Amino acid sequence: MRISGTHYRTIWPTAAGTVHVIDQSRLPFEFATLELETLDDVAQAIRSMVVRGAPLIGAAAAYGVALALRSDASDASLEEAVRTLRATRPTAVNLAWGLTRMRGALAAVAPLERAEAAFREAAAICDEDVEQCRSIGIHGLEIIRGMAKAVGRRVNILTHCNAGWLACVDWGTALSPIYMAHDAGIPVHIWVDETRPRNQGAALTAFELGAHEVPHTVIADNLGGHLMQRGQVDLVIVGSDRTTASGDVCNKVGTYLKALAAHDNGVPFYVALPTSTIDWSLDRGCDIPIEERSATELTHITGRNSSGAVETVRVVPQGSPALNLAFDVTPARLVTALITEHGVCPATHGDLRSIRRDRRAAG
Amino acid sequence: MRISGTHYRTIWPTAAGTVHVIDQSRLPFEFATLELETLDDVAQAIRSMVVRGAPLIGAAAAYGVALALRSDASDASLEEAVRTLRATRPTAVNLAWGLTRMRGALAAVAPLERAEAAFREAAAICDEDVEQCRSIGIHGLEIIRGMAKAVGRRVNILTHCNAGWLACVDWGTALSPIYMAHDAGIPVHIWVDETRPRNQGAALTAFELGAHEVPHTVIADNLGGHLMQRGQVDLVIVGSDRTTASGDVCNKVGTYLKALAAHDNGVPFYVALPTSTIDWSLDRGCDIPIEERSATELTHITGRNSSGAVETVRVVPQGSPALNLAFDVTPARLVTALITEHGVCPATHGDLRSIRRDRRAAG
Repeated sequence: MRISGTHYRTIWPTAAGTVHVIDQSRLPFEFATLELETLDDVAQAIRSMVVRGAPLIGAAAAYGVALALRSDASDASLEEAVRTLRATRPTAVNLAWGLTRMRGALAAVAPLERAEAAFREAAAICDEDVEQCRSIGIHGLEIIRGMAKAVGRRVNILTHCNAGWLACVDWGTALSPIYMAHDAGIPVHIWVDETRPRNQGAALTAFELGAHEVPHTVIADNLGGHLMQRGQVDLVIVGSDRTTASGDVCNKVGTYLKALAAHDNGVPFYVALPTSTIDWSLDRGCDIPIEERSATELTHITGRNSSGAVETVRVVPQGSPALNLAFDVTPARLVTALITEHGVCPATHGDLRSIRRDRRAAG
Repeated sequence: MRISGTHYRTIWPTAAGTVHVIDQSRLPFEFATLELETLDDVAQAIRSMVVRGAPLIGAAAAYGVALALRSDASDASLEEAVRTLRATRPTAVNLAWGLTRMRGALAAVAPLERAEAAFREAAAICDEDVEQCRSIGIHGLEIIRGMAKAVGRRVNILTHCNAGWLACVDWGTALSPIYMAHDAGIPVHIWVDETRPRNQGAALTAFELGAHEVPHTVIADNLGGHLMQRGQVDLVIVGSDRTTASGDVCNKVGTYLKALAAHDNGVPFYVALPTSTIDWSLDRGCDIPIEERSATELTHITGRNSSGAVETVRVVPQGSPALNLAFDVTPARLVTALITEHGVCPATHGDLRSIRRDRRAAG
C-alpha cells in the first residue's frame, strides 16, 4: 500500500542481507522502519509487536530463519531458529506454519546454499501472502458489492483490531475487500473498534484507512453492539489468528462479543483469512492456547501529549492487579462465512475440508 | 464508605450553605473534594462528570435546586434551576426524577422558606438513597451467598462501569451486595471492566474496591466474554441509568455485550438499581435518549506519567473522526433479575408493576 505516495510492504529484504520492517509499535505517532539483522532481532520484534498480525508474523519468522542461517547454516542453527521463533507468540498458527514450511524447504539443502535458499523461500512466502490477500479482497469485494445493492446507500462495516495490510505483507485480510470496494467506487464507511488494550484499531486501522482516504470512525469497543441494535452496521469483517478445522475462529480478544451482537441483530459476520491460518490439527476452539501478555499493556497507555511528545501514562490505580489475555474464540455457529483466498466458505467442518481437498488437488 | 479511615459520602452540605462533593474527575490519581456554591457550579459538575452515576446525579441536582433558591427563591428561579439541571445529561432518569420531586415539594412553599426546605428535601433524597442502596446490598447479598454455596469456592463477579458508592451517595448499587458479601466473610473476586472510553471501571471501581480491600482484577472490556466461556465468571452485576417499565436496562455502553455473553454462557446477569431509576413512562428501551459526549473522551486519555504528573495523551491519529455514545440498552430478555431496594424482581412488565403497586401501597 502507499504511504505518502510511496509503495510499501510491511517487510522486505535489503541488498545488505538484512530485513526491513515498518515499526508498528511507533504508529500512528511516527512512521519509521527498522532494520533486523539477526534471529534475535526478529524474535524480539515479534514478541514486542513491532511486527504483528498473523500473516505478517509468519512472514517475519521465515526471514528470522534466513537471518539465523546467514550467520550459521548448520542443522543445529536451523533447529535453534525454529525453536526460538516458535516460542515468541503462542496463538497465531501462521508462525508454526511458516516455520514448518521453512524447515521442510531447507532441511535437505546443503548448508552452503541454505541461507540463499532461505531468503528465497521467505520471499516466496511473502509473495504468496500478498497474492492470497489480494484474492481474499476480490472474493470479499463481491460481498460488499452485494450489500451495497441491497441497502442502496453507503455500506457500514465494523472491524475489530487490525487485519489490514499492516497485519500482512500487503493488502490485509479483513481490510482487503474494503480497499477494493473503496477503489471500485462502492461507498463504504468503517466503524473502527479501538481494540483495547493494545489499541490496534485506533492506532493502526485508523492510520491505514486514513492514509488510503477510506471514510471511517473510531469507536470504543463497547459501542458496536449498540450500533448494530440501531441498524448502523451492515456487516462485520474481522481477521483470524487461528481457525480450527471445524470453523471456530480465534482472533483478537473482544471479537466473540461482536459476533454475539451481530448474531443477535441479524448482521452478517465474516472472517477473512488465508488458509495458512487454519489449524487442521484442531477441532475445538477451546483447545487453542490463548496468549497472556503483560498487564502493563492494560494499565499503561501511550500517546502523544500536548507538547507533541510520545508519552506513556498509567490509567489503573497502583496496586490494582490487571489481566491481559490477547485473544478469544468465536464459535463457528456465530460466523456467517470465512473469506479465504479460494473463495467464501461456510464455517463448517465439511466445507473447510472441501477447501483443503481442492487446495491439495490444485497444489 | 471509608477513605483512609475517614467516612465519606459523595455529596454533603456544609454549614456555610454550600455543598461539597468528591471530585471524581481526579480519581484515581488524586482524592479531592470540591465546593459547589451556585446552580451553575452544580450543572457544570454534572456535565463534566465531576459527579456521575445515576443516583448521585439525582442527589446533586436536588442540591443544585437548593443552591439556586439560596440566591433567588422566586418561582422563576425554581423553574430556571429545574430547566438548567435537566439539560445537563439526557439519559439517567434519576435527574428528572429528583428535579420533579424537588419542584413538587417546593412549589407550594413560600419563597422565604424555600431555600431551607430545599436543603431539607435534598438531604432527605440523599438519606433515602443511602437507605435504598443498603437495602439493595442486603437483597443482593443473598444472591452472592447462594452462589458461594453452589460453587463451593470464591465467587467471581464481573461488573461494568462504576455502580459503587461513588455513583450514589453511599454503598452503591451493583457494588453494595459485593461490599456486604466481603464484609460478611464470603470470599469474592471482582472482574473490573475498564469501561472505555471514560475508564470508570479502571479509575473508580478499582479505586473503591482497592480502598475497601476487596480482591479484584482490572480487565479490558473485551475480555469478559472469554472469561465467561472459560467458566471464570459466576455472575454479573451492573447498575442502570434508566430502566423501562418492561425491564429493558439502559446502562453504560458495553453492558449489552456483556449481557449477550452472559446469556450465551448461562451466567446469571443481574442489574442493581433503586426504583427511582425506573422510567414508568417508557416501555421500550429503544425510546431512551442516548447521550452523545465529546469524541475527545475517546481520542484522548488521562493518566499519570513516569514523573508522577497527571497528563493527557492523544491515542487516535489526528484526522480520524471518533463517535462517543455513552450508553446502550440491554433488552429485558437478557436480564436474569433486577435487584431493587424492595427485593429481587424479574425484569418483566408484570413483576415491575407489582413492585410499583406495593411501593405505592406502602408509601
